[in-house]
Amino acid sequence: MIKAELGREFFTTRTVAEALAGFRPARRTPAEPVPLAAALHRVPAAPVTAPDALPGFARSTVDGYAVRAADTYGVSDGLPGYLQVTGAVLMGAEPAVTVGPGTAVSMPTGGVLPPGADAVVMIEYTQQVMPGTVEVVRPVAPGEGVVRADEDAAPDAELVPAGRPLRAQDLAMLAAAGVTTVPVHARPRVTIFSTGDEVVPPETAALRPGQVRDATAVALAAMVADAGGEPAVSGIVPDDVRALEAALRAALTASDLVVISAGSSVGARDETAGVVGRLGEIWCHGIAVKPGKPTLLAECGDVPVIGLPGNPRSALVVFRLLGVPLVRLVGGCAVSPTGPPPEPAVRARLARDLPSAAGRLDVVQVTVAGGVATPVFGPSALLSVLTAADGYVIIPEEATGLDAGTEVDVVIYS
Amino acid sequence: MIKAELGREFFTTRTVAEALAGFRPARRTPAEPVPLAAALHRVPAAPVTAPDALPGFARSTVDGYAVRAADTYGVSDGLPGYLQVTGAVLMGAEPAVTVGPGTAVSMPTGGVLPPGADAVVMIEYTQQVMPGTVEVVRPVAPGEGVVRADEDAAPDAELVPAGRPLRAQDLAMLAAAGVTTVPVHARPRVTIFSTGDEVVPPETAALRPGQVRDATAVALAAMVADAGGEPAVSGIVPDDVRALEAALRAALTASDLVVISAGSSVGARDETAGVVGRLGEIWCHGIAVKPGKPTLLAECGDVPVIGLPGNPRSALVVFRLLGVPLVRLVGGCAVSPTGPPPEPAVRARLARDLPSAAGRLDVVQVTVAGGVATPVFGPSALLSVLTAADGYVIIPEEATGLDAGTEVDVVIYS
Repeated sequence: MIKAELGREFFTTRTVAEALAGFRPARRTPAEPVPLAAALHRVPAAPVTAPDALPGFARSTVDGYAVRAADTYGVSDGLPGYLQVTGAVLMGAEPAVTVGPGTAVSMPTGGVLPPGADAVVMIEYTQQVMPGTVEVVRPVAPGEGVVRADEDAAPDAELVPAGRPLRAQDLAMLAAAGVTTVPVHARPRVTIFSTGDEVVPPETAALRPGQVRDATAVALAAMVADAGGEPAVSGIVPDDVRALEAALRAALTASDLVVISAGSSVGARDETAGVVGRLGEIWCHGIAVKPGKPTLLAECGDVPVIGLPGNPRSALVVFRLLGVPLVRLVGGCAVSPTGPPPEPAVRARLARDLPSAAGRLDVVQVTVAGGVATPVFGPSALLSVLTAADGYVIIPEEATGLDAGTEVDVVIYS
Repeated sequence: MIKAELGREFFTTRTVAEALAGFRPARRTPAEPVPLAAALHRVPAAPVTAPDALPGFARSTVDGYAVRAADTYGVSDGLPGYLQVTGAVLMGAEPAVTVGPGTAVSMPTGGVLPPGADAVVMIEYTQQVMPGTVEVVRPVAPGEGVVRADEDAAPDAELVPAGRPLRAQDLAMLAAAGVTTVPVHARPRVTIFSTGDEVVPPETAALRPGQVRDATAVALAAMVADAGGEPAVSGIVPDDVRALEAALRAALTASDLVVISAGSSVGARDETAGVVGRLGEIWCHGIAVKPGKPTLLAECGDVPVIGLPGNPRSALVVFRLLGVPLVRLVGGCAVSPTGPPPEPAVRARLARDLPSAAGRLDVVQVTVAGGVATPVFGPSALLSVLTAADGYVIIPEEATGLDAGTEVDVVIYS
């Protein structure tokens, strides 16, 4: 019986790179306005431009004296220049004085450059020799000690691009420009359901023999949230074609992306593929990755669907590689034509040889200490391999393994 | 006048490494229980242990046949073994059959190993030659194709350690163990206030000459939230000793950490230091970092206080280096005695020389494309340097610069 079902499993196997570059559903979430204080990591739906010049006035970058640069030419410690101090600029106020030839105005960092001045001499290169007179021992060039009125942003300049999740400094720039509401892509609604007659909710206190608690859904929801999505965990569906089809139909109407944590047996995987195939188009069934091979990518209408392996560990590994970029894509993140940029990683040296089969990408969990990456081994059924690990090393498709001592990039789990 | 105030600035300057290793306030937030679905990135206040063995039963890791390993010794393609199939294990159910000598039981991946069996032969190495008889062409060792009942976790084994923020896979492991509530450290309450007579709220539509909108607070709040804290932005305080002291006193009673985005002029900085010094103990005033030198670290009672430079860019750079680790520390994150681990980064080659002064750590913003890191230069008053950058490169204290072509680690802004 199992053999017969295995015979139906005709995988269209793809590499991870092919899946990332080739499976590009067109669906994007609509735009919605959010206040700046809630905009961190949200994805602008359009570029945001500067309403006005920033900072909006020529501004001192140092404590010192606003001067006409020409008045300081040639001065030095041995041959100081002397300027008449005609006033002081106060923070946040328009200068009440003008700088004329031979005069200087006391300036705080961030103050408005007074009319007539074209530079600010740092206080370190001055000395008040008598009330009303300052000695200058270093020359300044025009523009020195000053930022121009439009140096941070010209009017209509792009403050933040569309498609790049907002970072702390982007919020700062928008605040500086007075932009307190940003149009961003809505968070993709990602419905997650689990299948398997053996799977019971995590709340189940006592298990019957053969039962396992649903470990995957809560972890997938966490990864979805981290990727900018809005997870909806919709529970456990029995290994039954009708129940599975009803669950998938319901999920499709309310979701921007559907994730099925599939049953782990071949039969259960076949059923999932059959149901998905009836409601849409399967792009691939099988990824050349270890762990995580029995992964399914499909589109039902315009809703992308991911079918994950039944082993929680395999499911989490493959969702990180392929699901997280999909959540980001649907959520409006810009995608480079050359593929995703390299993931930030920590360099380390392998403590031992890592074997691998060519043509398959291997994800190997490791601990990292003192610059050494030590592989954590164990069957793909074990979650403890993932919880013990600090991160993972990728052995690319073309490699047949990595030797002990090789410098590797460890992507750190966070 | 400015000169006189400058004279009062006696910096106790520290390096970044000294600050990270030496400024270690003892305050920690208390524990609170949170449901698993809300526990991502939260910091366990105590190790969480397994109530029972996991998975709780010996479990097949493959589709195939449960057997007594001894019955398969010596079999091969040329000399297959034959076993009588006495039944099938169903997912999620207790086996109804026992495996005796010369018999086999059909197994799905994840099924319960029946009594008497000690291994599972993968279906790929079997063939049903006639109803009720299976041919086996590869031997298995005892334990092959099976995870032990306690292989993922023994009873009372540590599932997740205290002090390490929970990752997706940690939630999976806790769910598998039926742990649906976790004791975690409360999010540190971080009060952020801004000072400066020139600073007005971001909502201010039209600026008067010399005014600037508060760019720093919203970005600091974002970084605090990302570090696991609960930011409270408490507004703008005028450059006035009494107002500053009142604001700091109020913040101290309601906070686990206080961040002052200080005025940018020397006078304003002095006032901040004076007020903090009266209400507590200044650990250092000045960090050997560029940008970000005029940074203050203090403890008022047991509440750590950070005074940041007035330039938004400097403030954000130094808060990322020193403030974020403090939020994590107060929030219960374990700290390695050897200092924080290296930050994940992307490798790239410098497009041009980067000069630097020895004895000072430089943070240089860069863009990264095609493995090349190109520095973004500009006065530290400019936020656009930060918004244009993909990440930053650190030039350590001991270096006097980095040459073009040097391989560097770029920490990516996210």
